[in-house]
Amino acid sequence: MLQGTKVKRIEGVLAPVITPFRRDLSPDADRFVRHCRWLMRNGCAGLAVFGTNSEANSMSVEEKLELLDALVKGGVPAAALMPGTGHCALSDSVKMTREAVRLGCGGVLMLPPFYYKGVSDEGLFRSFSEVIERVGDERLRLYLYHIPPVANVPITLDLIGRLLDRYPGVVAGVKDSSGDWSSTKPMLERFRDRGFDVFAGSEVFLLDNMRGGGKGCITATGNVNPGAIDHVCRNWRSPDADKLQAGITATRKIVQKQPMIPALKAIVAHFGNDAEWRRTRPPLLELTPEQERTLIPELKAAGFAMPGLP
Amino acid sequence: MLQGTKVKRIEGVLAPVITPFRRDLSPDADRFVRHCRWLMRNGCAGLAVFGTNSEANSMSVEEKLELLDALVKGGVPAAALMPGTGHCALSDSVKMTREAVRLGCGGVLMLPPFYYKGVSDEGLFRSFSEVIERVGDERLRLYLYHIPPVANVPITLDLIGRLLDRYPGVVAGVKDSSGDWSSTKPMLERFRDRGFDVFAGSEVFLLDNMRGGGKGCITATGNVNPGAIDHVCRNWRSPDADKLQAGITATRKIVQKQPMIPALKAIVAHFGNDAEWRRTRPPLLELTPEQERTLIPELKAAGFAMPGLP
Repeated sequence: MLQGTKVKRIEGVLAPVITPFRRDLSPDADRFVRHCRWLMRNGCAGLAVFGTNSEANSMSVEEKLELLDALVKGGVPAAALMPGTGHCALSDSVKMTREAVRLGCGGVLMLPPFYYKGVSDEGLFRSFSEVIERVGDERLRLYLYHIPPVANVPITLDLIGRLLDRYPGVVAGVKDSSGDWSSTKPMLERFRDRGFDVFAGSEVFLLDNMRGGGKGCITATGNVNPGAIDHVCRNWRSPDADKLQAGITATRKIVQKQPMIPALKAIVAHFGNDAEWRRTRPPLLELTPEQERTLIPELKAAGFAMPGLP
Repeated sequence: MLQGTKVKRIEGVLAPVITPFRRDLSPDADRFVRHCRWLMRNGCAGLAVFGTNSEANSMSVEEKLELLDALVKGGVPAAALMPGTGHCALSDSVKMTREAVRLGCGGVLMLPPFYYKGVSDEGLFRSFSEVIERVGDERLRLYLYHIPPVANVPITLDLIGRLLDRYPGVVAGVKDSSGDWSSTKPMLERFRDRGFDVFAGSEVFLLDNMRGGGKGCITATGNVNPGAIDHVCRNWRSPDADKLQAGITATRKIVQKQPMIPALKAIVAHFGNDAEWRRTRPPLLELTPEQERTLIPELKAAGFAMPGLP
């Protein structure tokens, strides 16, 4: 039976890093590495590259592997990386997970296969199991990615339990992007004492998650506000934790009035004075000038800044 | 402006061909080619390989291109092929569509990028447009794949209109797998006179579609019942067309009492006496023995057969 080795796990705030695209829509490795370095210097404990906010599914496996390689060559510690490696195709998930482990990534964040809807827990168990067995490496740390509003394929408590029974130490945790605390709470209660690390999918739930025994959050706005979110994560036991939480929640609420991914890109473009960052791959669209004219002044009025953005 | 060349289009019954997998879950090209040949000899005018029923999204681009190559080398006429080439990743859709055109395929059936939900028509227009422009070949015949129950990303009438305006002759038609005649009817009424070929996504709507000016159907059960469905398609003007339609609808209803994809595989396994066919890739599951014990006798009682199945 494959069992995970005992090594230090990633804990704290992770950004699902947004991906810059060139004029021809090819991924821009230089800008990507620069942004990742800024994130690591400014509060991120790790980087969940190739997540939903990364437009990861809009890129091929080859494009993502090139970016991952550039990151590691660019000096970002592989142990801090938790790339998204779950695809609809079993063969794609295996290929990318294998490569992430080979590079020494601290973990992988794995979507369920998300094309077919209404699939059974047994089918999903077999999907994850096939990837784990084919990769066959005890260094693998697999974090399940529960994001029913987008994937439309949920990861149930029963499925988590079955995977933990079979692959203790390899199945390492979850990102819960349900946006629903009543989903996260039982994950903590049932599995936190079994080496299962629960990350909230939004900093709105960060304090609740830390108080419940979770390990941090993996959050879109970690791309632009990592310092303040990290401050809450480190000080969750302090008397003013609720006040700190209210601050990061307020920033989040401003950003999420707009479509999240282009909003994050517009913020980095604006505060880094680099228009190239605004570009998205279809089917996503950039913010309209009007949306951006609403977003940026609201952030500035709230005292938001991105110090030292390259 | 890219305009399609005038060549004979695929019309009639197409099967979204089920994909056989070996014990190690690798695609089995030999069995695949044999089944495709049987389909072409037994009523199919064309083959919509790599559709939903093909478990196409459970395979990598490379795995699909190997199967496509084997088909063409195996003597199946490329002009009869309408492979699914739409992926979440723009780069994957471009790569596979380009290769399909290079091989001389009669068309491609293209899913919208299906990870992000609630995307705009503008975003989807850009997705299809980028693929068409990057492939840049007037031989391309692009059929839009509308399957909201699975993709959860619909293709609207407005989007079809915009794509037809920009790419007449290249945007060649649609497979409507909404399961809802009130979706298909306006597609026919608005676009059938603009070189836009409407295929019903199920033979249940075949007669309605032919009477409304459609060109046939692309249907799951085309994998097992192509002769009878083709007979309706060819005789839709005959006085007993409604009776013929009732016959194929009855067969369909028996099959779809079970989960469709494993049911089709179980039927081919049973009538071809080849257990290997039962295998699915996760997250799909084979039929249970009990499900199969319900399905097969019901089909036999209805007089169903698959003559000459290899």
